[in-house]
Amino acid sequence: MGLEKNWNITVGSMPKGPLNKISDVPGVTVGHYTLNNGEIQTGVTAIKPHQGNLFQDKPLAASHVINGFGKSIGLVQIDELGTLETPILMTNTLSVGTVSTALVRYMLAQNEDIGRTTGSVNPVVFECNDGDLNDLRGLNVREEHVMQALENCCTDFEEGAVGSGRGMRCHELKGGIGSSSRIVTLDGKDYVVGTLCMTNHALYKDLTLRNDPIGKRLPNELYACEDKGSVITVIATNIPLSERQLKRISKRTIVGLSRTGSHMSNGSGEIAMAFTTANRMPHYPATTILPMSMVADDRIDEIFRAVIECVEESVLSAMLHAETVTGRNGLTVRCLRDILKNDPRYFFG
Amino acid sequence: MGLEKNWNITVGSMPKGPLNKISDVPGVTVGHYTLNNGEIQTGVTAIKPHQGNLFQDKPLAASHVINGFGKSIGLVQIDELGTLETPILMTNTLSVGTVSTALVRYMLAQNEDIGRTTGSVNPVVFECNDGDLNDLRGLNVREEHVMQALENCCTDFEEGAVGSGRGMRCHELKGGIGSSSRIVTLDGKDYVVGTLCMTNHALYKDLTLRNDPIGKRLPNELYACEDKGSVITVIATNIPLSERQLKRISKRTIVGLSRTGSHMSNGSGEIAMAFTTANRMPHYPATTILPMSMVADDRIDEIFRAVIECVEESVLSAMLHAETVTGRNGLTVRCLRDILKNDPRYFFG
Amino acid sequence: MGLEKNWNITVGSMPKGPLNKISDVPGVTVGHYTLNNGEIQTGVTAIKPHQGNLFQDKPLAASHVINGFGKSIGLVQIDELGTLETPILMTNTLSVGTVSTALVRYMLAQNEDIGRTTGSVNPVVFECNDGDLNDLRGLNVREEHVMQALENCCTDFEEGAVGSGRGMRCHELKGGIGSSSRIVTLDGKDYVVGTLCMTNHALYKDLTLRNDPIGKRLPNELYACEDKGSVITVIATNIPLSERQLKRISKRTIVGLSRTGSHMSNGSGEIAMAFTTANRMPHYPATTILPMSMVADDRIDEIFRAVIECVEESVLSAMLHAETVTGRNGLTVRCLRDILKNDPRYFFG
Amino acid sequence: MGLEKNWNITVGSMPKGPLNKISDVPGVTVGHYTLNNGEIQTGVTAIKPHQGNLFQDKPLAASHVINGFGKSIGLVQIDELGTLETPILMTNTLSVGTVSTALVRYMLAQNEDIGRTTGSVNPVVFECNDGDLNDLRGLNVREEHVMQALENCCTDFEEGAVGSGRGMRCHELKGGIGSSSRIVTLDGKDYVVGTLCMTNHALYKDLTLRNDPIGKRLPNELYACEDKGSVITVIATNIPLSERQLKRISKRTIVGLSRTGSHMSNGSGEIAMAFTTANRMPHYPATTILPMSMVADDRIDEIFRAVIECVEESVLSAMLHAETVTGRNGLTVRCLRDILKNDPRYFFG
Repeated sequence: MGLEKNWNITVGSMPKGPLNKISDVPGVTVGHYTLNNGEIQTGVTAIKPHQGNLFQDKPLAASHVINGFGKSIGLVQIDELGTLETPILMTNTLSVGTVSTALVRYMLAQNEDIGRTTGSVNPVVFECNDGDLNDLRGLNVREEHVMQALENCCTDFEEGAVGSGRGMRCHELKGGIGSSSRIVTLDGKDYVVGTLCMTNHALYKDLTLRNDPIGKRLPNELYACEDKGSVITVIATNIPLSERQLKRISKRTIVGLSRTGSHMSNGSGEIAMAFTTANRMPHYPATTILPMSMVADDRIDEIFRAVIECVEESVLSAMLHAETVTGRNGLTVRCLRDILKNDPRYFFG
Repeated sequence: MGLEKNWNITVGSMPKGPLNKISDVPGVTVGHYTLNNGEIQTGVTAIKPHQGNLFQDKPLAASHVINGFGKSIGLVQIDELGTLETPILMTNTLSVGTVSTALVRYMLAQNEDIGRTTGSVNPVVFECNDGDLNDLRGLNVREEHVMQALENCCTDFEEGAVGSGRGMRCHELKGGIGSSSRIVTLDGKDYVVGTLCMTNHALYKDLTLRNDPIGKRLPNELYACEDKGSVITVIATNIPLSERQLKRISKRTIVGLSRTGSHMSNGSGEIAMAFTTANRMPHYPATTILPMSMVADDRIDEIFRAVIECVEESVLSAMLHAETVTGRNGLTVRCLRDILKNDPRYFFG
Repeated sequence: MGLEKNWNITVGSMPKGPLNKISDVPGVTVGHYTLNNGEIQTGVTAIKPHQGNLFQDKPLAASHVINGFGKSIGLVQIDELGTLETPILMTNTLSVGTVSTALVRYMLAQNEDIGRTTGSVNPVVFECNDGDLNDLRGLNVREEHVMQALENCCTDFEEGAVGSGRGMRCHELKGGIGSSSRIVTLDGKDYVVGTLCMTNHALYKDLTLRNDPIGKRLPNELYACEDKGSVITVIATNIPLSERQLKRISKRTIVGLSRTGSHMSNGSGEIAMAFTTANRMPHYPATTILPMSMVADDRIDEIFRAVIECVEESVLSAMLHAETVTGRNGLTVRCLRDILKNDPRYFFG
Repeated sequence: MGLEKNWNITVGSMPKGPLNKISDVPGVTVGHYTLNNGEIQTGVTAIKPHQGNLFQDKPLAASHVINGFGKSIGLVQIDELGTLETPILMTNTLSVGTVSTALVRYMLAQNEDIGRTTGSVNPVVFECNDGDLNDLRGLNVREEHVMQALENCCTDFEEGAVGSGRGMRCHELKGGIGSSSRIVTLDGKDYVVGTLCMTNHALYKDLTLRNDPIGKRLPNELYACEDKGSVITVIATNIPLSERQLKRISKRTIVGLSRTGSHMSNGSGEIAMAFTTANRMPHYPATTILPMSMVADDRIDEIFRAVIECVEESVLSAMLHAETVTGRNGLTVRCLRDILKNDPRYFFG
């Protein structure tokens, strides 16, 4: 289901990748494991940055904390060493520990040297609080769910109320996982920028679709809620960028989020990270000095725009793919499609 | 066992608290759970900032990453919100997930509102890599060990090769948990600054005891090792400081660490955090505007000196309290006492 | 001239201060000195945080660098000490040195102790590059212009192409100085949040007026230009906030800027700073421990919204107050009013 | 005058460059202009990172603020863009504006495009407060002094109470400019790490020479002074490092400073920056993607040690080269040589 084809929504002007997902970046795959069982509405989503051994062959990476009301693990080391050495996992807030342990086990199984003849490993896990719809206190995510999400990784993954996005809400409607991609041409060659957002943030009254303030225009029967959500953004690219430049593009996610109506509210854990598959640091380098490459910063604006367009579209795509979900205490969170379907501006079959 | 009384080592010139430990700060307690079983040489250490409900009554806090080769959890939110809302836990690198989950369960048990009628909770867990002595890959720390460490919290806790310090090495000798405190008089009233260090860093050749470069002076039969350790420092005080000032004092730990021979090496995860029991943020504030107090920054140098003296003494105290330990692959890591005991400069009964 | 009254533009929903300017915060005044002479189109703008001796009685302050392609002076110390001790000055990029020296002289004249019996002083000067319209290389701002801007400080200051805003362009139209304010009620008492923006950023094609993408909708004959501008935002409030909270509100400026079409482009120096007149640090404190107060963070969202509304309105206000200006090389930069005046949506007398 | 040859002081164990100065890094030169006239004891020091056009060919660079009680200009942009585009200048605190303006003029003269057909330029100026010895309020540094310092740049520059170091004091004795270098061999090739420190920090009682606490051991008649100084460190290297790695090595300066007795006191502006001549960003890049190279981080410890040794030696070298100086109010600040010359441990001809 495409935003343009099905909903008449065009975000930005740059060309999109064939899947219009983060997996348009060669090597990137995404997998979900969804728990959908009454009061248990949660899950795990995994992003593999490439299909080789990540611990042996680490993509350069960086992160940016937009608003740090969040419990992620792994960012301290990413910012110090500039590398990512595991898949990126997402889950609910109180399951970070379990998912982190599972990810450690997954890495140990693949790398006999960790903790024996070399150092340890830095698991990266993000979270949002799905406690409105999900029995958060139940700690229902188990290690095998993580393994399953990792196993499910593919290029043509689902969006919406799936995986770690199962219990999320966004602008007080149903949120979840959304993704998008853009093509950037540099020195005559095509590269890809892709993003994946786990959206669990912001208020209905602020929701804006491509300059249409529908949150103010169209009525919606809502349960009362505070803006206590979060939004996590992962950016992937095959453009060669330095760690500093990956941090710069991470910061641009804010513009995309603002476009749909985010206010970076107090209770919203907004974190972005970016990695490039084009610059990698081997765990056992053959030489001390390693070749890298980077973009001239005065040519970086096109990449900034790609990130901004992708993030805005990822948020909308998460909402437009999500279905209405009923969860804890019988709470039903409606989906955006229900709001739009009676509006001729958006609905056309 | 005191450094001065037993080892003739005097660190600095400021007056010490009665226990010369972080627990001289009123309300602070520390507990250990130690796993000492052949190849399993590891554990858990817990610090309780005060004896009330931490989630309801959050001490102001801040952190500083000296070198971020580390896998701690909880710092992102501390830096955003300036508060600590759980006990602080320490363990080995690959057990952060399990300890984090256990800490979540501990908090859930004490707070029925979390995940139901209010938001989630931010567990704070630090780690060092004890993989030389400990079977790190075994993930041997279990949730009940965390509960036990929390239960064991008291003011007159043990130092040395105990709790999370069980498998640590420092300057290639046996490291572990060390603590110290200093009295600071402000406006005619006595306050306490206390630190606790988990020491797992640096090389033997750089070890310096109060300007005595014993690492170069006294021979030591060592196993070959790289500087792949870490050192975690927690600072507690009852001086009213702002979040910015807590970050400032966290940075001063570096000076204390440098004194004993740290080089902030690549592989060393060096992280400091500080909290004050004098400024607290209630989870359910009665008013929007809350009174706080802070120190005039041009009077802060005495507090900086207290931190620096405490950190240097904490590192030495960890080493001097630790015993020789034999662990994984039959490796024996000797204790500093073995080095010093034949040197009349230090040994006197 | 008001946005609502004259242009039918309403930004946000919060109540505004009587002047709808930063000077609604009690004690805050603003002054300009404008150089308008052929190829010289530049100037100086001064903001006085209060009317007492700023060096003796320092407001708490913090800053946030959105995009650091900028040459400001003074932020390093603000972030370390959390205080502001001079008026805030704005000028063109290459005149920061001269303005800084003038500000030092101004402070020396008021404070005989600086450099004699006490330390030095930290001048704060921001800049944007007005080199399209102004003879930047001429370094035409002189120290007496700074003194004049400081002398001109008042509450009902001008907006638009005045002071340091004289040569600025925004969205490729004429930019300059804009300001706005909002009332926030806390614990039953009214407080003020005010912002002042020096706008020199972004492209015409991205310009958006309250969800109207006029940059795409209305044609405009433009000279070709790159997005090499900047935008500086100063936030004032009389709400008691901590240094950490002042940094948090500084970050929210990004949302306001995004609303009108900023992309945080590479060449744009985007910097925000905030101060509160409610918490002050005396240069010669009578006691070491000083009372302060702060807002409970879970009540801060209303302040975030005030900042976001103020920033969006400040940008638009700068553009709507600015007149068309002709400067260097005969370049004419048109004003937004020229674009809107034929559009019945906006023009009504 | 060498520390080893003349003073029997050996810092560290790594091999030194031929001059044992920052100018051992190929291309780096340093120049001074000294004002020595009664109450005027101040000056300017310039560091040229290479001998080409710096604006056209920018070395990668990064900075780290150890303690931000300082008024430097230029760091915001260095951290954003990762490049240095002017010589680095040092002066007294209140002359930063004048020196900045002079540096702008110097750059304008060399680059006709600045402010005409391309953007502006980011001058980098550091400062320490020499107000004890120097008539700081007189603002006696003039633009022509800056030009002279830039003209005087050479490889075999003077150390001690010269240039911007003229009025500085260090550990309450005479400080100033000191420099040192080390050779690092990577992949079989020799590289250079060099540092230059402007030393104006710390108390006499803490002074430590290679583990000899002479500040406590040898009496010294001192004027009463507070620790209100600063220390600036510039690191140069021809090792290819990324911006992130340049920041990492900048942080290691703290260890070197701690060795001689720094406490990172409140009033001390301690800032470090690093640049590499091996990775450069052209102002007008021929292609968008540019080749760079970087060191594998797990081989970086040798570079950290080189920085630490260089910084410790630079501080001592500044003090041992400085002569006794009499300045403002007839104040005489004694040099370290006067303290050491009666001590057989150090004096030998």
